[in-house]
Amino acid sequence: MRTKNATLNYSTRGAGDFIDITEDVRNAVSKSGIREGFALIFAVGSTCGITTFEYEGGLKSDMRNFYEKLVPSSSGYEHDRTWGDANGFSHIRASLCGQSFSVPFSRGELFLGTWQQIVLAEFDIRKRNRKVVVYIQGE
Amino acid sequence: MRTKNATLNYSTRGAGDFIDITEDVRNAVSKSGIREGFALIFAVGSTCGITTFEYEGGLKSDMRNFYEKLVPSSSGYEHDRTWGDANGFSHIRASLCGQSFSVPFSRGELFLGTWQQIVLAEFDIRKRNRKVVVYIQGE
Amino acid sequence: MRTKNATLNYSTRGAGDFIDITEDVRNAVSKSGIREGFALIFAVGSTCGITTFEYEGGLKSDMRNFYEKLVPSSSGYEHDRTWGDANGFSHIRASLCGQSFSVPFSRGELFLGTWQQIVLAEFDIRKRNRKVVVYIQGE
Repeated sequence: MRTKNATLNYSTRGAGDFIDITEDVRNAVSKSGIREGFALIFAVGSTCGITTFEYEGGLKSDMRNFYEKLVPSSSGYEHDRTWGDANGFSHIRASLCGQSFSVPFSRGELFLGTWQQIVLAEFDIRKRNRKVVVYIQGE
Repeated sequence: MRTKNATLNYSTRGAGDFIDITEDVRNAVSKSGIREGFALIFAVGSTCGITTFEYEGGLKSDMRNFYEKLVPSSSGYEHDRTWGDANGFSHIRASLCGQSFSVPFSRGELFLGTWQQIVLAEFDIRKRNRKVVVYIQGE
Repeated sequence: MRTKNATLNYSTRGAGDFIDITEDVRNAVSKSGIREGFALIFAVGSTCGITTFEYEGGLKSDMRNFYEKLVPSSSGYEHDRTWGDANGFSHIRASLCGQSFSVPFSRGELFLGTWQQIVLAEFDIRKRNRKVVVYIQGE
């Protein structure tokens, strides 16, 4: 049984940016040499998230509309009033989305569906440099 | 330290179908012979999810109403327009619900509350055959 | 490769109570002696959750408002009618929030952002004694 850590770095373009990181996770698993195990994908930061969805333009647009309706960027949030900030909605969306995602693999292949991509979701109001840790454990 | 994989198969009845898979997960842990460890339960597919709730009729009905209000099945989604599809809402609900759930166990017993069942949630518009991977690791 | 379990106990004050458990998780990791691994934090119970957000007063208030708007405590839920209960909304909020959260660590340090706290969320209508299991695995 062994463990491996890989760090992936991404430059995002602000709220509503979704980045498909599936291939990078696959490469990290492949490079680890571990064949039977699981990958824990963790996004560092309180205004971004990790989720899964079919990564195509229509659905990316739907996801943006959904989050905007669910947690409007225009509302007055206590967080913003307290800190002179403008990303209260980003924090709430990120908490709901979550920053941690685990997926098992066998013979080096992730158990993902064909249209089930792993997506880094940027919720903050500005461009950010994001770090995603891929922790791999198995044998 | 060892790992074990079990695959569970379910036939679902379309959007709003919830299946209690707790006993199947318990059996998979029991059969693995691993006594101290964790189980990672992963649903394959982008229009289903894994969640936990008290599995009883009233709450199942409440969960259906909640998801219908949150992500209406009737709305026009870009995903549907792009692909001539009708399950845009299914994708959004599944992304929000998540497909991955981990729970530790000790002496072979999952640390679940009495009314905390592990539930496979079908969000797609039609009957589906679903595969749930139970990855178990420990000693 | 080794595993360690720690149990954390908390007294909560009912719906909307958020407790920052980050330091307790850090201490559990430190005491385990495991340096490279991951922590799986699991809240026992179907009316509480584990999430992450920047733990400050403004955002705690925003999170309360968000959950109240999303799943109103006043609505009539089937769960309540069936069981003469009043915490149907608690169950739905908890299912959405989730009770399981995993984070990797290296050299004994959790990969958390500066403002990314691990939070126990109480959704039930009354004070509860809550058990949070911290399962640690690595080497």
